Amino acid sequence: MHCLGLKYFNKNQVLDILKKAMYFKNEKNYVKSLENNIVISMFFENSTRTKTSFEIAALKLGAKVVNFDYAKSSLQKGENWEDTITNINAMHPNFFVVRHSYSGFSLYISKFTDANIINAGDGTNEHPSQALLDFMTIYEHTQNIENLKVCIIGDIINSRVARSHIYLAKMFNWDLSFYGPHTFLPQNIENLKLEKDLEHAISDKDLVILLRIQLERKSGVNIPSLSEYNKFFGIKKPINTYIMHPGPVNRDVELDSTVYIDRNVLITKQVENGVYMRMAIFDYCASN
Amino acid sequence: MHCLGLKYFNKNQVLDILKKAMYFKNEKNYVKSLENNIVISMFFENSTRTKTSFEIAALKLGAKVVNFDYAKSSLQKGENWEDTITNINAMHPNFFVVRHSYSGFSLYISKFTDANIINAGDGTNEHPSQALLDFMTIYEHTQNIENLKVCIIGDIINSRVARSHIYLAKMFNWDLSFYGPHTFLPQNIENLKLEKDLEHAISDKDLVILLRIQLERKSGVNIPSLSEYNKFFGIKKPINTYIMHPGPVNRDVELDSTVYIDRNVLITKQVENGVYMRMAIFDYCASN
Amino acid sequence: MHCLGLKYFNKNQVLDILKKAMYFKNEKNYVKSLENNIVISMFFENSTRTKTSFEIAALKLGAKVVNFDYAKSSLQKGENWEDTITNINAMHPNFFVVRHSYSGFSLYISKFTDANIINAGDGTNEHPSQALLDFMTIYEHTQNIENLKVCIIGDIINSRVARSHIYLAKMFNWDLSFYGPHTFLPQNIENLKLEKDLEHAISDKDLVILLRIQLERKSGVNIPSLSEYNKFFGIKKPINTYIMHPGPVNRDVELDSTVYIDRNVLITKQVENGVYMRMAIFDYCASN
Repeated sequence: MHCLGLKYFNKNQVLDILKKAMYFKNEKNYVKSLENNIVISMFFENSTRTKTSFEIAALKLGAKVVNFDYAKSSLQKGENWEDTITNINAMHPNFFVVRHSYSGFSLYISKFTDANIINAGDGTNEHPSQALLDFMTIYEHTQNIENLKVCIIGDIINSRVARSHIYLAKMFNWDLSFYGPHTFLPQNIENLKLEKDLEHAISDKDLVILLRIQLERKSGVNIPSLSEYNKFFGIKKPINTYIMHPGPVNRDVELDSTVYIDRNVLITKQVENGVYMRMAIFDYCASN
Repeated sequence: MHCLGLKYFNKNQVLDILKKAMYFKNEKNYVKSLENNIVISMFFENSTRTKTSFEIAALKLGAKVVNFDYAKSSLQKGENWEDTITNINAMHPNFFVVRHSYSGFSLYISKFTDANIINAGDGTNEHPSQALLDFMTIYEHTQNIENLKVCIIGDIINSRVARSHIYLAKMFNWDLSFYGPHTFLPQNIENLKLEKDLEHAISDKDLVILLRIQLERKSGVNIPSLSEYNKFFGIKKPINTYIMHPGPVNRDVELDSTVYIDRNVLITKQVENGVYMRMAIFDYCASN
Repeated sequence: MHCLGLKYFNKNQVLDILKKAMYFKNEKNYVKSLENNIVISMFFENSTRTKTSFEIAALKLGAKVVNFDYAKSSLQKGENWEDTITNINAMHPNFFVVRHSYSGFSLYISKFTDANIINAGDGTNEHPSQALLDFMTIYEHTQNIENLKVCIIGDIINSRVARSHIYLAKMFNWDLSFYGPHTFLPQNIENLKLEKDLEHAISDKDLVILLRIQLERKSGVNIPSLSEYNKFFGIKKPINTYIMHPGPVNRDVELDSTVYIDRNVLITKQVENGVYMRMAIFDYCASN
């Protein structure tokens, strides 16, 4: 099956995937369930950790990874998406891992292939593997994933990570709130719980998720300056709740370097869990 | 042995390779005959399907693929071809898969290596794996490969695909003809059978091969406009013969989108067969 | 353990690595000691032979290689080195193979990872695998590695290869001298033995190592012209001693094409040995 977004998964599926991810983390000897599988890695946006993480996950399960290099592809010869995907699909790969700046890109190309599509981030739509690895990380630390109190701080409106978390929040009955500059918050959405200041945003929470100011994308133009963002929305001193961030962190913007190293900042653990979670996603999609 | 072009193969060799390709397509369990082999993939022109197809083929046979990235290579430091190839050859790779815009490039570098060279397209000279996968595809549909009536339509003079097909035509006694704008046809060649109009070109044929207007190379300047080409040389409605195209197709230029989906248009099947044919080429060259 | 430079190895370690390299060259069936290992290949400077050689070496030992593409990485999003390395390290790779234009870069990133770092060349500091493969090549030809008479000719001051050889020379009691234009020689260093002319530089030596004029880096500006360099410092006719060069050679600058093919020019053998030596370095670092 595909992994296009958490929109398409239910609670039991998410729990099955979590269980698999924990298994891959704890077991040294597991079946290489992707032996002889071909994984096409298609990244149309810059990425270090997501691309590398998916690639390592696939290789650990015994798959072969083929990189699709946009700059050298026939798309440069004017071929359209449908034909490109249809043609690569004809080579019978088992997976496409796809990142693209268009929202809905993964869903779109899933129409032209019988391989499993894994969405590695599409525009401002979803980033399911990121939300799932966050989920795994908070589970490890709280041993609980129901009824959590979570606040997401930052550029909500452009965040595919936030959107994927909203689906998780519904499934697991989280008390989910948001905080950020007005230009970063969705307007006219009922039932969206907004915090009134940073003090409230971080108080009495199990988890705070900081989002990246995506300077390379559109969010940079919606704030007066990075230092002003840091002043009003950045975490500048230790707080008494877990902090996550999908990375890469703009140091001293979303999070001060002095806080970065605190024990309750789980950023490096998120990255570590990413490999196991992506193994779980591959394995789950291959067998369902 | 090398696979530099169909010029260097005889009929029995081509039939052996075809048999191997059909075997790889039909068998699930085959010996991984390239286990421990190192394949160097060197593409100096943009490519999606050929590069990906060769890479998947090599991986399926158990080989390791190493990409040679021109832009990051010592060629950027002024090293000449001979020294670059001699040096990589000293690392004892088993195969080079090479695409280059120079006609004869594969033959040239074969002088400096004892690895097997597979020509993945060299200038306007040959594209043997493409002609062989076309050959496999027509064989599957007609169950016959002798005495076929075939017309190649389009930019003949710049086409390495057409040149490789001419060698096949001689081996298998095809009645081979050509059609296209005058600027796309070789002049002063005796025995070259030219069709007088599109009607004749597609009538009473077993197969029509459409060639790509290579806008990224020189063919673009030799026609007044793409719409004019489409008007006189494009297939605009269903015809009663098999249609192939080496891809990528310029939709609504060589072939109208409404015809593209017809049952006798074999383009996606060509791509599918490409992986099996390239496995066969690797396997054959490794053992001969 | 890391392989940051020959500065950090002693004589016995170097001999152990040499023994392993000879073993990999002579044995066909060896244990794939890097099975299930993940090797991150990070090259921030152009390279053909070093990058390809390390990649082939890793694959031959059964490792999986993941390429880190700087141009597509999160470094383009402004992430700093420490965070990039810390994050990739969290994915538990076994090795980083790193080339960078900053001297000390390998040492620097070794602070943020528990993987083994292999320095594939850092600025003007060290290039240990090159010096070790040179060492293996001279050992094969002289059956002796103690008390050799060696002269290094060329751009000494910018050469990481020369620096690594200086550590070898101390360990094995070589009589090491240098020759080149004044602008290429370190000043004010006692105990540095300089030859007074090319005649003396090549006389009564076991080995002469020619260095590359690194036109792509800073050395190009320190000589009047390539032809003048060739006239006074290039080897223009056969000499009676072994000649090595780390490559790529500027033909007819450091070495004339007529001499290049002489039996005592070991350049291609250096490249061949490079794969076995890098296998040995991987294997040694993995088990120590």
